[in-house]
Amino acid sequence: MTDDTVSRVWTLARRPTGTPDPDCFELETRAVPTPGAGEALVRTRYLSVDPYMRGRMRAGESYAEPWDVGAPLRGGVVGEVVEPNGTGFAAGELVVGNLTWADYTAAPAHELNRVAVGDLPASTALGVLGMPGRTAYFGTREVADPRPGDTMVVSAAAGAVGSVVGQLASMAGARVVGTAGSEEKVEWLSELGFDAAVNYRTADDYDAALADVAPDGVDVYFDNVGGALTDAVFEHLNTDARVAVCGQIALYNADDRPTGPRKLRKLIETRARVEGFLVSDFAPRFEAATADLRRWVTNGDLSYRETVTDGLDRAPEAFLGLFEGENVGKQVVRVS
Amino acid sequence: MTDDTVSRVWTLARRPTGTPDPDCFELETRAVPTPGAGEALVRTRYLSVDPYMRGRMRAGESYAEPWDVGAPLRGGVVGEVVEPNGTGFAAGELVVGNLTWADYTAAPAHELNRVAVGDLPASTALGVLGMPGRTAYFGTREVADPRPGDTMVVSAAAGAVGSVVGQLASMAGARVVGTAGSEEKVEWLSELGFDAAVNYRTADDYDAALADVAPDGVDVYFDNVGGALTDAVFEHLNTDARVAVCGQIALYNADDRPTGPRKLRKLIETRARVEGFLVSDFAPRFEAATADLRRWVTNGDLSYRETVTDGLDRAPEAFLGLFEGENVGKQVVRVS
Repeated sequence: MTDDTVSRVWTLARRPTGTPDPDCFELETRAVPTPGAGEALVRTRYLSVDPYMRGRMRAGESYAEPWDVGAPLRGGVVGEVVEPNGTGFAAGELVVGNLTWADYTAAPAHELNRVAVGDLPASTALGVLGMPGRTAYFGTREVADPRPGDTMVVSAAAGAVGSVVGQLASMAGARVVGTAGSEEKVEWLSELGFDAAVNYRTADDYDAALADVAPDGVDVYFDNVGGALTDAVFEHLNTDARVAVCGQIALYNADDRPTGPRKLRKLIETRARVEGFLVSDFAPRFEAATADLRRWVTNGDLSYRETVTDGLDRAPEAFLGLFEGENVGKQVVRVS
Repeated sequence: MTDDTVSRVWTLARRPTGTPDPDCFELETRAVPTPGAGEALVRTRYLSVDPYMRGRMRAGESYAEPWDVGAPLRGGVVGEVVEPNGTGFAAGELVVGNLTWADYTAAPAHELNRVAVGDLPASTALGVLGMPGRTAYFGTREVADPRPGDTMVVSAAAGAVGSVVGQLASMAGARVVGTAGSEEKVEWLSELGFDAAVNYRTADDYDAALADVAPDGVDVYFDNVGGALTDAVFEHLNTDARVAVCGQIALYNADDRPTGPRKLRKLIETRARVEGFLVSDFAPRFEAATADLRRWVTNGDLSYRETVTDGLDRAPEAFLGLFEGENVGKQVVRVS
């Protein structure tokens, strides 16, 4: 698939208007980079594609640094150290870092971490034991704060973040309702121990669907989606409800400024709290979070799935599929 | 103005569509009520009109119990006990309670409290030492949480709640910016120690006005208004901003469901927290709050104004004026 003299690299060909298409991406062939002093050469095994990357396609509008047109795309990568080059890593060691969508990246030691997945597959360092798992961990425990007896709704519940959120909320004693976009996903949520699930693609009426699965209202909402679904959930919020805003994937491809019903008055009625968060704010506690997640996966308390797309050449396809809901669990690209 | 054999009583003539007009109210003349066992007869001195009452004009849509068509309107009243009737109050004693828009109300003892204003005017029990003052007290200290160095924006800052909020935020060390609807109000905010103020009626562009008065962004927003002004403030929120949602007066007369720009994504970028609250949730601590407020007013740390409309017959006019911003500080109606 790859030879070891060239590195294929995805670059941003142009910024999208609305929904990105494959022409926004360009696959170039470059020489394998020569690591500078203090840099290791890493060969990509798995590449992460995540909804937040849509923000990086914009020019400076998001919390994530924008990708530059013509420059290599960057994201979570698990790779193998090919040339340690004095970084302290061993040749052959698996590392994880924010690297390029490429066969090879040269990166300084401080941007790389040893993959700490124990006996689990290396790809989990991008999913349940990586950024999405930690997002779920801190978002659930520190922001959403489900308590025994609460009804909690999780949108995009079959995604990399939502699937972990729901399981952590169940552990915390909440009754957990997920929303997802296919019968396969709904079935998986049931296997994960969700108490109920809504297929939002076949629900005629979100309001009625929510009344059905959350007849006592919603105490906690973990939102990955936004838009009309979130509008409907807000109408079911109970007194003192908490809303953790993690993602708004339904709106990421909106080109103009989307509008919707005003909800602040609902917050007065319910005394609800709505809070956005970014997992990066919890960086000092990442190691402890990963250790907890690894232990729960290992002892069977936490299940996960990955959707693996084979081949660096298919990375844009895997990324764009996120917005169609084509992944179950964490979407990764297997590169080598 | 009144005789002591009849009681004029305002009733709800019909529910409004959109902005209420005087025809929604009807002034009836009834016999002075005869207090039942355990009820005192109270003669109204001051009647409070408050924006939240617009919600009571709707049928069951608000957190406040709806007023019934044909029934007397209710609200905060300061009055004099005329017939104690075994309630434990003394004749001539001033009490405050949620009574009727009328010359007289008969009310059970548990719905009445002695007016505890010290040497201050009795009307303050409806304003700076009453529900609006306590709303400001708990909303500022428990929800908005301004800290030294924060920039805090207060909308409807020259109102009964906002004027107290801004002063409490100043005491807490924040730099305080108010929005108000006249030059007179803007000038008063300056006297109160607000660091800056925006006249939203003459500001061509809220965004530019905010950039001018809050060049380092907004750390805390205390919202009494909602709508376009609030939309603009949200765009200036800083990382970890707090928004206390107290009122949405700009929307109370909207008949259909108002829409506006979606803001949840902004909350992710800023990790902001938005929280609604109702002062009634803090009822167990009202006495302590009132004592603090009274002390601050007495020692000159806290200033207040009242806009007094004379005559029970003008109560609807005073109420409707709230939505035109005609009051500076607390709007009350002097009845006797």
